[in-house]
Amino acid sequence: MIIDCHGHYTTAPSDLTTFRDAQIAALKDPAQTPSRESLRIGDDQIRDSLEKAQLKLQRERGSDVTIFSPRASTMAHHIGTEATSLEWSQINNDLIARVVGLYPKNFVGVCMLPQSPGVAPANSARELERCVKDLGFIGANLNPDPSGGHWNSPPLTDRQWYPLYEKLVELDVPAMVHVSSSCNPNFHATGAHYINADTTAFMQFLQGDLFKDFPTLRLIIPHGGGAVPYHWGRYRGLAQDMKRPLLTEYVMKNVFFDTCVYHQPGIDLLLKVIPVENILFGSEMVGAVRGIDPTTGQYYDDTKRYIDSSALSGEDKTRIFETNAYRVYPRLKARLAAAG
Amino acid sequence: MIIDCHGHYTTAPSDLTTFRDAQIAALKDPAQTPSRESLRIGDDQIRDSLEKAQLKLQRERGSDVTIFSPRASTMAHHIGTEATSLEWSQINNDLIARVVGLYPKNFVGVCMLPQSPGVAPANSARELERCVKDLGFIGANLNPDPSGGHWNSPPLTDRQWYPLYEKLVELDVPAMVHVSSSCNPNFHATGAHYINADTTAFMQFLQGDLFKDFPTLRLIIPHGGGAVPYHWGRYRGLAQDMKRPLLTEYVMKNVFFDTCVYHQPGIDLLLKVIPVENILFGSEMVGAVRGIDPTTGQYYDDTKRYIDSSALSGEDKTRIFETNAYRVYPRLKARLAAAG
Repeated sequence: MIIDCHGHYTTAPSDLTTFRDAQIAALKDPAQTPSRESLRIGDDQIRDSLEKAQLKLQRERGSDVTIFSPRASTMAHHIGTEATSLEWSQINNDLIARVVGLYPKNFVGVCMLPQSPGVAPANSARELERCVKDLGFIGANLNPDPSGGHWNSPPLTDRQWYPLYEKLVELDVPAMVHVSSSCNPNFHATGAHYINADTTAFMQFLQGDLFKDFPTLRLIIPHGGGAVPYHWGRYRGLAQDMKRPLLTEYVMKNVFFDTCVYHQPGIDLLLKVIPVENILFGSEMVGAVRGIDPTTGQYYDDTKRYIDSSALSGEDKTRIFETNAYRVYPRLKARLAAAG
Repeated sequence: MIIDCHGHYTTAPSDLTTFRDAQIAALKDPAQTPSRESLRIGDDQIRDSLEKAQLKLQRERGSDVTIFSPRASTMAHHIGTEATSLEWSQINNDLIARVVGLYPKNFVGVCMLPQSPGVAPANSARELERCVKDLGFIGANLNPDPSGGHWNSPPLTDRQWYPLYEKLVELDVPAMVHVSSSCNPNFHATGAHYINADTTAFMQFLQGDLFKDFPTLRLIIPHGGGAVPYHWGRYRGLAQDMKRPLLTEYVMKNVFFDTCVYHQPGIDLLLKVIPVENILFGSEMVGAVRGIDPTTGQYYDDTKRYIDSSALSGEDKTRIFETNAYRVYPRLKARLAAAG
């Protein structure tokens, strides 16, 4: 069983974008407010959007199931108000639930949260609970910077975030720390903001006492952990200089990296320096990088190939492809069993 | 000849900190404004601050000369006004000139710039020129985020920066893109802000046309290029998707990475994916990480060991340790020759 922990619905029918455009336009002109009922996406549209993209690539690349969430770049929590984000989250999460309903063997749901700048993260707990309890989702994407590149929320270790962590722990679901698009011209979304957020989150965890307060909280840092594995010596050294616990004895008890690193040398480094129990297979297809690497003739984001080609033992590959995911997502096995 | 391109005066006499504290206090209470003449640092103090630190480590580790600039974390361009930054820059740059005067074989000067949030980068050209023409410096540190973690200046590819680039080109000196401390609680300085800035700058260069406009401008991205080498596949793929030139045919004609990566696997990755002509030896000692790696028994930041232990040919090691630096810093050879 090959489980891809990191997939977004990047190929959703264009009606979804049309609705969002109208929702955004209505922020300035409430007369244009679209009704949620005006958004009608048929099952055939959903099937079509997946059959020629994610499902085709699952078959071609040999993965079995994708842990699937709304498109990260269009979460755009910085747009509008809390009400805007709540409506947009519910629509997207419901759409993911329909995807899972149509293809229960191929997809398991993860939700986006109705975060909004300046709004208490506690307010996202209700939608999280709805997605887990009513829609059968197994995790959430948590945006550490709802401002979209201005970084004016408190760090993830701040107590303001605690009510949301309490709900994650209560529901026994992990969160992937994942920013959305950037409205700061300094930061290209997938080329800077995403990777910076991963690095930033890791350092916040190293500095703070979050996992003392939440020993069972599990957080996934995507994109191979940002810059962290490449600078593993820096982070080990900083923890040491700051008289913090060893990374393997504190942060890495609760934090996991995916394998969204799009070349063999990067994956080889990740597998070399990060304990295998902290690594989850992920590709983020169809996502940030869609082309074919001319040096290999294969898709950059076909990360399964890099792991297959690595020096890891078969047993360790199985942990990355499958069994680690059962540990990080405790609700996953039941969902797969229910899918038959 | 082993040339360390990345050293800051992190061990300057405490009188410098005392002056800075008074300068900052005077922002609220001008009666406390310290006179520049009140700051008297003797040659013996300078010698003492270096003999037991950078000079000792040069000898122990086997490097010959350090390209030396004011402490990066205390540039703190976000504090005070343009006048504050100008005075602080001149004091620090003059101090570097004294270091070089005392140890001309061991140190070559690079300046900090009197940047200030919201102030045109053009205003830094004059201090740059003074440092190069009057003090014999061979480069500058350029802060891409004078706000200290709020990132509200335009990207480095914006025309607002062009007058400063014109001066760099006119003087034939490179700049190292180096942020200072962070006043944003999200970003630990050396664990997040530094690395994020490196990654951010690279992506800005990938997106923009800066090097079409300045084909001879040379910029160094420190800390091993941030996250870039680890995600080299992502950046190659993004350039391709965005229909930008190949990285090796555009950005890497003008951009160089240092070797401030504090473990062997990280350095091995850097040397594997980044062309050898784009790599400059650097350690940033005495800097961000000061401890001894228990897995090796050696200092984390003794980066020379990692390069010595790498699979590179002797010829390639010489390029990284020495000859690439002559290309990136055209004024370096003359300075070394003058030192005898």
